[in-house]
Amino acid sequence: MSFTIQNVLIPDDQGYKTVDVQIQADRITAIAPNLPVIGTVIDGSHQLLLPGFVNAHTHSSEMWQRGIIPPSPLELWIAELYEFTPLDPEQAYLSAVGTAVETLMTGGTSVVDHLVLIPGQELETIAAAERGYRDVGIRAFIAPLIQDEELSAGIPTGGDEVKHSSYQATTEAMLDLLQTAVEKFHRPDEGVEIMVAPTGIQLCSDALFAGCIELSDRYNLNRHAHLLETKAQKLLAQEKYGCSAVQHLQEIGFLSPKTSLAHCVWLDDRDIEIMAETRSTVVHNPLSNLRLGSGIAPILKYRQAGVNVSFGCDGSASNDSQDLLEAIKMGSILHNVTDFDYLHWITPRQAVEMASRGGAIGLNRADQFGSLEVGKKADLVLYNLKSLSLLPRTDPIGLLILGRPVSVISHAWVNGKQVISDHEICNVSVNDLAGKLFEQSEWNPKRKSAAVAQTEARYRSVMGLPEIAIEQSST
Amino acid sequence: MSFTIQNVLIPDDQGYKTVDVQIQADRITAIAPNLPVIGTVIDGSHQLLLPGFVNAHTHSSEMWQRGIIPPSPLELWIAELYEFTPLDPEQAYLSAVGTAVETLMTGGTSVVDHLVLIPGQELETIAAAERGYRDVGIRAFIAPLIQDEELSAGIPTGGDEVKHSSYQATTEAMLDLLQTAVEKFHRPDEGVEIMVAPTGIQLCSDALFAGCIELSDRYNLNRHAHLLETKAQKLLAQEKYGCSAVQHLQEIGFLSPKTSLAHCVWLDDRDIEIMAETRSTVVHNPLSNLRLGSGIAPILKYRQAGVNVSFGCDGSASNDSQDLLEAIKMGSILHNVTDFDYLHWITPRQAVEMASRGGAIGLNRADQFGSLEVGKKADLVLYNLKSLSLLPRTDPIGLLILGRPVSVISHAWVNGKQVISDHEICNVSVNDLAGKLFEQSEWNPKRKSAAVAQTEARYRSVMGLPEIAIEQSST
Repeated sequence: MSFTIQNVLIPDDQGYKTVDVQIQADRITAIAPNLPVIGTVIDGSHQLLLPGFVNAHTHSSEMWQRGIIPPSPLELWIAELYEFTPLDPEQAYLSAVGTAVETLMTGGTSVVDHLVLIPGQELETIAAAERGYRDVGIRAFIAPLIQDEELSAGIPTGGDEVKHSSYQATTEAMLDLLQTAVEKFHRPDEGVEIMVAPTGIQLCSDALFAGCIELSDRYNLNRHAHLLETKAQKLLAQEKYGCSAVQHLQEIGFLSPKTSLAHCVWLDDRDIEIMAETRSTVVHNPLSNLRLGSGIAPILKYRQAGVNVSFGCDGSASNDSQDLLEAIKMGSILHNVTDFDYLHWITPRQAVEMASRGGAIGLNRADQFGSLEVGKKADLVLYNLKSLSLLPRTDPIGLLILGRPVSVISHAWVNGKQVISDHEICNVSVNDLAGKLFEQSEWNPKRKSAAVAQTEARYRSVMGLPEIAIEQSST
Repeated sequence: MSFTIQNVLIPDDQGYKTVDVQIQADRITAIAPNLPVIGTVIDGSHQLLLPGFVNAHTHSSEMWQRGIIPPSPLELWIAELYEFTPLDPEQAYLSAVGTAVETLMTGGTSVVDHLVLIPGQELETIAAAERGYRDVGIRAFIAPLIQDEELSAGIPTGGDEVKHSSYQATTEAMLDLLQTAVEKFHRPDEGVEIMVAPTGIQLCSDALFAGCIELSDRYNLNRHAHLLETKAQKLLAQEKYGCSAVQHLQEIGFLSPKTSLAHCVWLDDRDIEIMAETRSTVVHNPLSNLRLGSGIAPILKYRQAGVNVSFGCDGSASNDSQDLLEAIKMGSILHNVTDFDYLHWITPRQAVEMASRGGAIGLNRADQFGSLEVGKKADLVLYNLKSLSLLPRTDPIGLLILGRPVSVISHAWVNGKQVISDHEICNVSVNDLAGKLFEQSEWNPKRKSAAVAQTEARYRSVMGLPEIAIEQSST
């Protein structure tokens, strides 16, 4: 399939220029004014063409619980999340489709799914998500979420003797699973990659990290993990290692240009230097960091230190959406209150660069996609500049990033294949998806979490919060 | 016109119940299961009914500059805004229509427009906005923005001798204008009210405030102003009054249950007590506070002190949208990073209450609208719970507030009159609006502000920011 986008606006230094763009097979083959037509013609007039963004951290199956977990910090929120996590691979399929659809409709052409696995059906979960992403046509980085310690181990002890039950599976079993997943599903040429993705220092042994590094080296896999999302995790790292989590991850060799780390809220200046030295990427998830009260990640400091930063929606039980444009907007303007010098603030053009090229760098694929250049993969998004939310005409990128664009994407392609056409998702029926989500759920506003009730008193004590009477508790 | 909404979900303590709702003329006349049908039937099944929200602070004509002003603090941003402000009342009409449309499409049924007046055409500006709001059918509180000092007076002197030119109009002329506006346009029964709205302490004399208070008392008008949006304004208040802006406004009698104050970012604990004592309302504009780097308003402290808080989008050159649901989401979750005790965080239900009843309280109209009660005005919004962005079924209000709802409103009414029907704005053509906005604007990403260039060095010096070379400047 070849096609030519005619008379389209693309960014150019501080302004814009009107060009034609030729695509042959999966690549951009020419960008210039007045090109000869190759293949199908797409009318790009009054439209803005940008490289697709990367939704660089999410957990697709959280879609089943979006909107329902009350405002609470990560350590309590996750107890409720896991208590009610879906257990049917068909649900994992639908939430992958939903995640892909919402990501595409808001400018993303790649998604990193730190995929929560159904116990006992781990490979089936991965297969279901992979099928969902292939059906929609989004570029997918599936990062099976693995751990080898029990959830309760993620809360600092505060010096108390605390016993945790052992995790349901051994470290070896987790690594074997990962290897099988790589063999079955890792197909970079087809737009599906497996990543090694221990959940983070809070629930993973050094042996699990070591096994992941080994697999990453053997198969050239990208690496992903959560990092210092909460103050509790910072305390835990000190308890566990006697040093910061970042120093520990550097010592064991997990940090690299192939490594992207979600959140990075509680890093200190030395940690930031290590991130820069190891050329690791920070995935900024501003909305979940606010929703869970985790804190404001020091993104302006990262940028000043030369650390690559990309954006993620995070799972939609902690956001509770997969609107990538919203994550980019908030991930940009949030930091204006952290530095009085506005010359350091993220501009809309910088935000676009972070979301596209920054996302690709974090996946070690900036040579492949993330920019409008001849030879790059055709992961492209066309924004209709006649949409009310992008009017009046001012600065298209300024309004795209700082406004609240609604239904603005007319066409999009991944790997040269069309995924949005005339404002509609091409390859799956959104109505069918909505119908199935409706049928397979029920309004349940009074849900109570037993797991939160069990954890809450200890969490409050360790974090120095006052004791509460039971009727006040967040559940 | 009478109508009956059948089988609709409404909130009930911590859950929901299914009821019918009868509306006769402009009022809710019954809420109960299985009511007899009166007038037209509206099928409310799988829909959520909420009272309309209040967009409690905006400046409609900023729509013409949304997306174009680069990231910069209020004092520089406003210099650019005023340099390029639209000068044609027909533009004021279109931006009022656009503001009303975007507010309605995101759950608002009332708007407070702190309306920037075109010099020399002040009454024509008010007339144009009033016509726009009447055409769309939204409940409008038009607050003509008045001042009697030059823009440069809004920046603290830092102890230097600074001369400001005198303002284009006298204090008396501003007050006369306001009185004429009241006589011509103040029609509470028809859903259009005029408010007294000096822009704020930074650009207004005590005489102007006194005149506004007198008009407010004489005509029973609500009062509105900006308050301590930036650190610079806090410094300025000390220079001007030798006390805090809040103490001064209390002394001169501006604070009252009829007074709503936009921003309130830089209040101290004593100021908060005064806000509570005077029963003044804080209008929280989280998005512009971030966009302009103004700071995070201490909203949790206000709530704990018993101060009423509502939400505003602020003008769309500082946001850059009028998506009220986005303002409510961000205005809720932003504060989770300001207090580790999650029991203080704003829940989705509390956010709905702040946006509806809180908005009405701030306009001294809680007896009239802002809640689902028999006898209240029928300012009502129906949310379609089969929309993808409100699925799967979990907790409808949780997902409405914490998610990113897109095109979810099926029907809405103001004063019992329909303003949205089958997901479409009823009374104006959105396509025509978009067409006119397109025609009357041009892409202009390289615009430079002479006013910012003039102001920047002084601003940086007063705020203790390092001097910059000209080529680094934000413009």
